[in-house]
Amino acid sequence: MKINENYKKLEVSYLFSTIAKKVNEFIRNNPDKKVIRLGIGDVTRPLCKSVIEAIKSATDEMGTFEGFRGYGPEQGYDFLKEEIQKYYARKNVSLDLDEIFISDGAKSDLGNILDLFSTDNTVLIPDPVYPVYVDTNLMQNRNIIFLKADQQNDFLPMPDESIKADLIYLCSPNNPTGAVYNKSQLEKWVQYALKNNAVILFDSAYECFISDSNLPSSIFEIEGAKSCAIEFCSLSKTAGFTGTRCGYTIVPFELNFDNMSLNKMWLRRQTTKFNGVPYIVQRGAQAVFSEKGQKEIKENIEYYKRNASLISQTLKKHNIYFTGGIHSPYIWLKCPNNMKSWEFFDYLLQNIQIVGTPGAGFGQNGEGFFRLTSFNTCENTKEAMERLDNLLT
Amino acid sequence: MKINENYKKLEVSYLFSTIAKKVNEFIRNNPDKKVIRLGIGDVTRPLCKSVIEAIKSATDEMGTFEGFRGYGPEQGYDFLKEEIQKYYARKNVSLDLDEIFISDGAKSDLGNILDLFSTDNTVLIPDPVYPVYVDTNLMQNRNIIFLKADQQNDFLPMPDESIKADLIYLCSPNNPTGAVYNKSQLEKWVQYALKNNAVILFDSAYECFISDSNLPSSIFEIEGAKSCAIEFCSLSKTAGFTGTRCGYTIVPFELNFDNMSLNKMWLRRQTTKFNGVPYIVQRGAQAVFSEKGQKEIKENIEYYKRNASLISQTLKKHNIYFTGGIHSPYIWLKCPNNMKSWEFFDYLLQNIQIVGTPGAGFGQNGEGFFRLTSFNTCENTKEAMERLDNLLT
Repeated sequence: MKINENYKKLEVSYLFSTIAKKVNEFIRNNPDKKVIRLGIGDVTRPLCKSVIEAIKSATDEMGTFEGFRGYGPEQGYDFLKEEIQKYYARKNVSLDLDEIFISDGAKSDLGNILDLFSTDNTVLIPDPVYPVYVDTNLMQNRNIIFLKADQQNDFLPMPDESIKADLIYLCSPNNPTGAVYNKSQLEKWVQYALKNNAVILFDSAYECFISDSNLPSSIFEIEGAKSCAIEFCSLSKTAGFTGTRCGYTIVPFELNFDNMSLNKMWLRRQTTKFNGVPYIVQRGAQAVFSEKGQKEIKENIEYYKRNASLISQTLKKHNIYFTGGIHSPYIWLKCPNNMKSWEFFDYLLQNIQIVGTPGAGFGQNGEGFFRLTSFNTCENTKEAMERLDNLLT
Repeated sequence: MKINENYKKLEVSYLFSTIAKKVNEFIRNNPDKKVIRLGIGDVTRPLCKSVIEAIKSATDEMGTFEGFRGYGPEQGYDFLKEEIQKYYARKNVSLDLDEIFISDGAKSDLGNILDLFSTDNTVLIPDPVYPVYVDTNLMQNRNIIFLKADQQNDFLPMPDESIKADLIYLCSPNNPTGAVYNKSQLEKWVQYALKNNAVILFDSAYECFISDSNLPSSIFEIEGAKSCAIEFCSLSKTAGFTGTRCGYTIVPFELNFDNMSLNKMWLRRQTTKFNGVPYIVQRGAQAVFSEKGQKEIKENIEYYKRNASLISQTLKKHNIYFTGGIHSPYIWLKCPNNMKSWEFFDYLLQNIQIVGTPGAGFGQNGEGFFRLTSFNTCENTKEAMERLDNLLT
């Protein structure tokens, strides 16, 4: 038996384990100091009431002969797909129900979608980046070209006509940088993809943080995108579903390559290797899109955004360059005094007991940068920013 | 962009859509006749009380600041893995917690596990078979050798020393045939795998139907299996989780090939392309293994088994050859009078309005056979068997 040799090329990421090790050591040596974690990439506020009620009521149904549901459609129940269809209609994007696939999260689908593509393709990935894009392609031995995101392009790299790519990863609002593409920038990407017969894999997991309606929150707001893009979205950050698991992937009918429909291929992949999201979770997800649900989740999103704003204000006051913090829960800042990422990590931990994430952990171009997140309480974020303000003054 | 060309080789299965079409047409033409469906491959009885309570209580937790859980471990929470560890201990199989991976179902893992293996491998698949084994390998262009299961070997094919295979699919109790390997038969498979440096992918999704403790309900009851087998199990049939989605996969530490640990590779695959099973579902699954939960699910399993027994008795009375029906919800019978599978389907539908599944739909060797299942009510199953008894008399 031969293993998939490509796994040997995967590097082990020590980013979060190294952070944990350093923080634990600090706490052991300084038990009296209060450490504030602004490195969290996970939501912290509970599921909203509408979701809780919907899940519990669906669970009760599952305990009755009349209400019990066994295997559901692998691509999701219509009651949820219809809500997502309406959600997109409000963005002026018209979708057919069969273009919507309910998933157990963007991470799964972003990895599994690669099943549809030849391993001969060349992949374009921005750097710094969410490591999953890189690792899933290494597992299948695709040629990867990294796209430089830096201060010069405000961490929003644009197409390079001299590069020929087949698959393009874009994430906007971006993880880890919080940067958001505007409409004209995304138009250029769509034009590039159409010209190169490429497919854009658009990760919109943070779209709910966009509050400026001029900024696209779906790639399909761009003309022509339905012929060159797949969109991955999630309720993880939108509605606190990181531990409840539900997302959706849009594969337009217009995506036809080599006489094959990517929509039909994805349906075949999912019906063969997936059995759908739990019925009770789909009912919870449906409640997110109700009027009451939307009001409740927006309160949570606004809460996180106020934290992001607190962080942004402190950085502005000290003239520190950063991206994100407005339409994103993430703030990506240039380390002061040209410190390196890990140097700044230690500096913050030792002096003011704030934990963030060293940018170098997200790729070569992350060196010298640092990620803070808004997923803590308002009180802790305030306290952390007071400490930071004092430190930098 | 080049697509994965292998998708062109996948055949569309018209099995269940053809059945639906024929049944709907019959009902349209005979609105007064009561059709009884014994072709269902899905459970019909509701989730048991312990599971309902556990899910609802976990859902309440998720609505509080203290109880909320975001991202969990991709491989599952220890509270559930510990229950599975104890469940295996009762079979005298000792497992480390890190050998247990919680999944959203056996189907997902049976497909996704192939990520770990070279596409150069040769795969051995019994025929008749659950089509997922075939399609997932076609998608990656592996060489497939079919293993003949037939009346001569009681649908329990044994190793052929002249064949060199790298990956071997075994499903016991079998879907669709209901046949169960005994210990000495599985020992021969383990010996074959060890000798050929092969890996057995053991699908034990129906293990809960085994009531004879002499029959192995895990491949790991066989000595040496930990060095050559991965086991896939599910709560779908065990506890009615087909629409709730939870299973588990056992990847022993002893599986080392080419200096790589399959356990570590699977962990890497899952942490990269999966984000775990919903917390609330894992709490429901935990309740399945409680004393009360075990009692409740066993009542359901016994209910299905009584139906299976009703079917078996009728077939025995008429000297019809069949497998399954004892340690399985499935009964796989030889069509009387040498009828072909679809011929017998029409014969039953037209004469006594019973719907089953033509064996030919599960592979070449299924021709002339027919699958009945026990997933209907006791009353309907009784009525169906009275009709069948009359028809055959």
